Amino acid sequence: MSALLDKGAAFAADKGIDPQALTGAQLIEDMKPLTAQVQFACDTAKGTVTRLGELEPVAMADTEQSFAELQARIAKTIALLDAVPREKIDGREDATVVLKVPDGEMPFTGRSHVLTFSLPNFYFHLTTAYALLRQAGVPVGKLDYLGGM
Amino acid sequence: MSALLDKGAAFAADKGIDPQALTGAQLIEDMKPLTAQVQFACDTAKGTVTRLGELEPVAMADTEQSFAELQARIAKTIALLDAVPREKIDGREDATVVLKVPDGEMPFTGRSHVLTFSLPNFYFHLTTAYALLRQAGVPVGKLDYLGGM
Repeated sequence: MSALLDKGAAFAADKGIDPQALTGAQLIEDMKPLTAQVQFACDTAKGTVTRLGELEPVAMADTEQSFAELQARIAKTIALLDAVPREKIDGREDATVVLKVPDGEMPFTGRSHVLTFSLPNFYFHLTTAYALLRQAGVPVGKLDYLGGM
Repeated sequence: MSALLDKGAAFAADKGIDPQALTGAQLIEDMKPLTAQVQFACDTAKGTVTRLGELEPVAMADTEQSFAELQARIAKTIALLDAVPREKIDGREDATVVLKVPDGEMPFTGRSHVLTFSLPNFYFHLTTAYALLRQAGVPVGKLDYLGGM
């Protein structure tokens, strides 16, 4: 995500485009913009680890507008993930994991939470961010999405 | 994917839109259309299982144009996955899995193949299919993407 955003920022600078035309880009007017796609991807990663590890939730205000602010959000999220001890997560595949949603709670096991909720959601927001940049003309390709394999 | 396509077909019928305007939709002119997103999602699932299980590859011609043909491709792919015995896949996490690409071979373990190649690619194509339908005005939402949790 960070590498995709770097290419977006470089493209805006290169073409003299207002960067916020890119960070505010939407696929359709009632769908969330690029900023929110980054925020949701970060929150999916953060929330998954918090729920699996029964850790204290860490709220982050969704105030980012610029590419630099989005990069800071990603860095802050990665630092938070890196600080979680492995033993908080390992062995939690059969534990009960509860997702709080506006109209109640959704129960999962650790395994079903990661496989049916976290991974699809994480990649949804990563791919949508890619789609927004790609559609705007930013020269990103599948290998950028896959993280330069 | 099948449920998303059903909503696309119903939308085209309801609005009197040529269905192939939807199945041929692209995010940008040098990116693959909806038909290819479905074909690639199917092939990612099929290829992953074939490679992990050391099974004979099954080629499918990428000739689908209509919603009905795309649904048939999905059904054929799911039938193929369902026919693979569990013991061909279980325990293959540390096995060597080789992906053939145009300019050579990419080696993975079973685990790294699924986690860093198959899942990101599968969700990329599923999400891109969603984005194409969503952008065209088809009334799909996140729960349709997540498979009606």
